Amino acid sequence: MDANETDRATLALVDRYIAAWNEADPARRRALVAETFEAAARYVDPVAQAEGVEHIDAMIAAVQQRFAGLRFSWVGKVDAHNDRLRFQWALAAAGGDEPLVIGTDIAELSADRRMQTVTGFFDKLPAAA
Amino acid sequence: MDANETDRATLALVDRYIAAWNEADPARRRALVAETFEAAARYVDPVAQAEGVEHIDAMIAAVQQRFAGLRFSWVGKVDAHNDRLRFQWALAAAGGDEPLVIGTDIAELSADRRMQTVTGFFDKLPAAA
Repeated sequence: MDANETDRATLALVDRYIAAWNEADPARRRALVAETFEAAARYVDPVAQAEGVEHIDAMIAAVQQRFAGLRFSWVGKVDAHNDRLRFQWALAAAGGDEPLVIGTDIAELSADRRMQTVTGFFDKLPAAA
Repeated sequence: MDANETDRATLALVDRYIAAWNEADPARRRALVAETFEAAARYVDPVAQAEGVEHIDAMIAAVQQRFAGLRFSWVGKVDAHNDRLRFQWALAAAGGDEPLVIGTDIAELSADRRMQTVTGFFDKLPAAA
């Protein structure tokens, strides 16, 4: 792949990742998770951890239940080098209100450009949290 | 370790990491690198990659030669959860001028709390770069 193809593939991967977090249909969400993550992928953020596609899918389902009615979107640009990505995301009401949570995810990609390790950090949390 | 001890150990680790980047004496630098990184640690940023204590030490030596007279410092707070850290650093002239480069490092720690994987991203680069 040339640089532009890599860029497009990277943006498509981050798009799929965010789509998985927003997808309420269990079968479609599971398919997005399997396309986005390597089978043995590990995910860890300050409040959740999961290993493998099945557990990552269950973790996302639990987050969706907890934050029903809110949507994830990505913010700014994807910062990519080597097999690493960094991007910021926001969780907000569908109407486009001020985000409730903003975070940054760092991903390490596998040779087939799926996510192998994702580390999440929170940049903004609700004042009461 | 309780939470405060973990915090102190984490801050000491980041201090050692920055000290290694600033240490001009080869033997002292090598000792700091060995205390900071696991033997087989991997480091990757947009312009440099190294695997293992020896190569990481050589990479730091090369950066010191390239940026002679500049000093690294860490900026803001260390964001830590599970076995992951995130912190921002600046590279500036010793006199405290405007930083030439600002970056963010994300580290995954080993069981003995040394750095196992470090991923660096640049947040600010010189305009000419």
